[in-house]
Amino acid sequence: MNELKYALDTFYFLVSGALVMWMAAGFAMLEAGLVRSKNTTEILAKNVALFAIACTMYLLFGYAIMYSSPEGGIMPNFGALLGLENSADDVAAGKANHSLYSDFFFQVVFVATAMSIVSGAVAERMKLTAFLVFCIVLTGFIYPVEGYWKWGSGFLHKMGFQDFAGSAVVHMAGAAAALAGVILLGPRRGKYDAKGNAKGIPGANLPMATLGTFILWLGWFGFNGGSQLLLSDVENANAVARIFVNTNAAATGGVIAVFIYTKILYKKADLTLILNGALAGLVAITAEPLTPTPEIATLIGAAGGVIASVSVSLLDKVKIDDPVGAISVHGTVGIFGVLAVPLTNDGEGVSFWTQLIGLAVIFAWVFITSFIVWFLLKITMGIRVTEEEEYVGLDVVDCGLEAYPEFAPSNASSGQ
Amino acid sequence: MNELKYALDTFYFLVSGALVMWMAAGFAMLEAGLVRSKNTTEILAKNVALFAIACTMYLLFGYAIMYSSPEGGIMPNFGALLGLENSADDVAAGKANHSLYSDFFFQVVFVATAMSIVSGAVAERMKLTAFLVFCIVLTGFIYPVEGYWKWGSGFLHKMGFQDFAGSAVVHMAGAAAALAGVILLGPRRGKYDAKGNAKGIPGANLPMATLGTFILWLGWFGFNGGSQLLLSDVENANAVARIFVNTNAAATGGVIAVFIYTKILYKKADLTLILNGALAGLVAITAEPLTPTPEIATLIGAAGGVIASVSVSLLDKVKIDDPVGAISVHGTVGIFGVLAVPLTNDGEGVSFWTQLIGLAVIFAWVFITSFIVWFLLKITMGIRVTEEEEYVGLDVVDCGLEAYPEFAPSNASSGQ
Amino acid sequence: MNELKYALDTFYFLVSGALVMWMAAGFAMLEAGLVRSKNTTEILAKNVALFAIACTMYLLFGYAIMYSSPEGGIMPNFGALLGLENSADDVAAGKANHSLYSDFFFQVVFVATAMSIVSGAVAERMKLTAFLVFCIVLTGFIYPVEGYWKWGSGFLHKMGFQDFAGSAVVHMAGAAAALAGVILLGPRRGKYDAKGNAKGIPGANLPMATLGTFILWLGWFGFNGGSQLLLSDVENANAVARIFVNTNAAATGGVIAVFIYTKILYKKADLTLILNGALAGLVAITAEPLTPTPEIATLIGAAGGVIASVSVSLLDKVKIDDPVGAISVHGTVGIFGVLAVPLTNDGEGVSFWTQLIGLAVIFAWVFITSFIVWFLLKITMGIRVTEEEEYVGLDVVDCGLEAYPEFAPSNASSGQ
Repeated sequence: MNELKYALDTFYFLVSGALVMWMAAGFAMLEAGLVRSKNTTEILAKNVALFAIACTMYLLFGYAIMYSSPEGGIMPNFGALLGLENSADDVAAGKANHSLYSDFFFQVVFVATAMSIVSGAVAERMKLTAFLVFCIVLTGFIYPVEGYWKWGSGFLHKMGFQDFAGSAVVHMAGAAAALAGVILLGPRRGKYDAKGNAKGIPGANLPMATLGTFILWLGWFGFNGGSQLLLSDVENANAVARIFVNTNAAATGGVIAVFIYTKILYKKADLTLILNGALAGLVAITAEPLTPTPEIATLIGAAGGVIASVSVSLLDKVKIDDPVGAISVHGTVGIFGVLAVPLTNDGEGVSFWTQLIGLAVIFAWVFITSFIVWFLLKITMGIRVTEEEEYVGLDVVDCGLEAYPEFAPSNASSGQ
Repeated sequence: MNELKYALDTFYFLVSGALVMWMAAGFAMLEAGLVRSKNTTEILAKNVALFAIACTMYLLFGYAIMYSSPEGGIMPNFGALLGLENSADDVAAGKANHSLYSDFFFQVVFVATAMSIVSGAVAERMKLTAFLVFCIVLTGFIYPVEGYWKWGSGFLHKMGFQDFAGSAVVHMAGAAAALAGVILLGPRRGKYDAKGNAKGIPGANLPMATLGTFILWLGWFGFNGGSQLLLSDVENANAVARIFVNTNAAATGGVIAVFIYTKILYKKADLTLILNGALAGLVAITAEPLTPTPEIATLIGAAGGVIASVSVSLLDKVKIDDPVGAISVHGTVGIFGVLAVPLTNDGEGVSFWTQLIGLAVIFAWVFITSFIVWFLLKITMGIRVTEEEEYVGLDVVDCGLEAYPEFAPSNASSGQ
Repeated sequence: MNELKYALDTFYFLVSGALVMWMAAGFAMLEAGLVRSKNTTEILAKNVALFAIACTMYLLFGYAIMYSSPEGGIMPNFGALLGLENSADDVAAGKANHSLYSDFFFQVVFVATAMSIVSGAVAERMKLTAFLVFCIVLTGFIYPVEGYWKWGSGFLHKMGFQDFAGSAVVHMAGAAAALAGVILLGPRRGKYDAKGNAKGIPGANLPMATLGTFILWLGWFGFNGGSQLLLSDVENANAVARIFVNTNAAATGGVIAVFIYTKILYKKADLTLILNGALAGLVAITAEPLTPTPEIATLIGAAGGVIASVSVSLLDKVKIDDPVGAISVHGTVGIFGVLAVPLTNDGEGVSFWTQLIGLAVIFAWVFITSFIVWFLLKITMGIRVTEEEEYVGLDVVDCGLEAYPEFAPSNASSGQ
């Protein structure tokens, strides 16, 4: 009986992890669709490479930092790598619920998600190599440390900070790292005119962007659904099912709210904002996908969608140029999601202040360390391509290949 | 033991439901690939929005209408929303097989499928807002009522009408709603010449259409496979496995038959017809994917594929303009699928006449109610864009964004 | 208890099989992205059709050849088709682990994978019909015979040849069939100049190619993970989890190694080589994804990636024109994967020489039989389109439809 439970919970983890791995494709397609054709090959290469680096760094360092640490402290330590697998005796004795390797698999795809968020925000003007060096540090060190604080039973966990599947630990963390990079990087040429008004730079392939959103939506069932960690009894099975329903409901709320929002504001159904609305709904519910009713989950998603849309406009006002809206969707809405947890959890004593402290700690840690790393990269190898390279496009500069050699206009005509 | 069965059956439902949710991406990609580039953003926005509205309406009204109704009657009633979840005691006592939320999740993605079918048929000339208002009514009321008649244990179920996963309840229903809309909407400008001959209007992106077909094919394993409802004993596990094999076989039959059909008729392998052949095979087997042998399933799929191809030609003869062939694939072939059930089920007393009555009832209900709703929309807000808007394309009109701003020719040159 | 194990193992097989079926979409997108736009519709039609034919031939003949054969011999025989399904009594008595239909489903998608490999290598100049006739023979006869030798308990299995999920049985076999075809077919016009230097012919849609790679990556969890065949006890659950981790690690190793390789050699991150690096990593680990540690799996994948890149260059030197690099990725690296098995398996007595013999046998069988079939096709119906047809593109010739009618340049200007 224990053996079979162990097998089922392991399988549930693996299926969930495969869905989260699939989110890497979602980010790649979303970002490839939202940038201009001259920067598409580069962003594809970046997404594939960051996933590979993230997985490898997490295997070599991150997992050990995050989960082999003394409980409750601030300083993680380096423990063993992937340890000895559970034995049949351990399982019979009720000491193990699922394969350690399935746990690792589920965790490793999360760190890739965090890094994927950064990718979109710095698109169209960052040097590929600088980005990947940053990726090494974030996925091997910065993320695992704050991940340890919450999910490795560190001090945020002890404090009672609640963040079910990572609105803050994963999404806001990615956005904080992105924000630090974008500030040091500056906006794309031509994004803001002399008066500071933002100019729309349309993405080259909206079907791709839509596909990416659907992939992320699907993958999120693994992201949130797997974060229950167990499935094999009635309580957990019910919880996972409710998480699936609420996750979907939040995404739909985001879509509907942003659809109405753009119709009112612009008289048009702005597809890119609507797609971000779906993702914002998903980010918003990620901090607590279990306790709300599906109706409340829909509303949380709707609020997330509108917040993302407003945030996109506000960031443009302060010239934070984020080509895909990642900082708004994952950062601003990640904060909202975490702060919304007490609304449906007050009986369990989740405190608004604890949530706020957790957010502040994670943001400060990721933003400051990322800023330092980006800054060091900036003064050494440089993080931004030259003006001419930006004009020509990163594809030719970094990859030597055009994404759509037969369709796209010549670089000269598409440069701005 | 019961707990573990419950967990496994819940997980099976959730995985199946996630696959069906993925079909929403399939319809979006299929339709985005088969329309012209000037109408692509709009059809993407439409597909995202319809999924969101369908899920929300079904949560608020549809599920209650479909499953909280007195058994055996014609009139459904409004019951409770998603009720109390099953307790461990219920499960121990054998009163519950899987989480209610997993059941809801599996059902909610079906209603989105029905609505997605409508989307393709009315493409390239319908007002986006009118479509979404219709979506509210179909997913919140029209579909749940006929769904109740069959799957909510209503009168069609009592009569012995057999439709395993919904060739009629989902697919033909979607096609009937689409047909009503298309009749009131009229064909696209330039589709039929003065003599009534249909002109081919090629889709802008066939890789996208092919991807959409593969996504639907994959999702269909959840659609049919999940409709067995249980997996956790030998009989049910065997049934689900056989359904997977037969579902795949029917799709392959559709592909092969239509490949040969187009080679004979046109001397070419017409990719769009072949893709529809795969989908037609899937629709055809959906009414009974369990009882046929895989060889018979292949033949049923093959017949479905050819029927869809012929139906596409016939609808063009009567100027029913369906840009993606949805009415043929889901409607005509849905009817065929339901009527083919007795061929492999005669031992179980499934009657051809009962099947025919079921089809007539569902078609009449969906077509008439849909016609009324479309008609009311037509005389109030209008359902069709202006001639000039159609020429310019819905993307600019409804969304203010081009799908491929760097590749596509200017609207003037692509507008017929 | 046995019933529940049976259900879980059946479900695990079905989920794995669905992931492998999804690889068909991956190959279609990868190949569609890597050919020129004028040959895109044809390669899509080819991929859909080959999947359908492969499944049907394997249902009618292949499965019976591969699994209904006397143990240990060279000559397979024709056994029964899909037999009687396991009864509850069989399961209670411990005679059956999972549904026969789930086993068939898992196997049938493998044969399609083998055939998909051929498709890319012969792209842009082969007649569609000739290809599909070859597909009938490979999937109905050539593959099942060598599959029987290993997985049907034939003589390679008895010898101790080790090939966990098919680096040789599936991947190198596909590449051998492709190589025979490519030799008889000759290179694309314009691929090699008068001095024999290869000219780059860029693919038309790199986002599609990247998507295809991610799809294959995801599907590979089913390909390797499902090949453990059982999941329902601690040992097997642990094994499946480790296979997931190692499969992912190998792909990441391939990406990182090729990224560095192309940066050193060309100063650019060559996306198409990097994508092939991921796939090569996956092929390399497929022969033994269980015994390595994740760190070793990363290295095996890295080696595979570099080997694929070098192989691509070498094949161009001898004018083996393979538009997507399939022979290198699946063939050369498949050989490497099989030969690497003893490195992590020496305790279990897997011998390098046995591995070498197995490779030689499979290669010889598939290459020679394929060569004969391709040759017979060449002297009868012909396998290559005319010079003019190649110039115009296969889409118009074989399918009568352009893949991107609104974007692509006229055929005249894109023909070389």
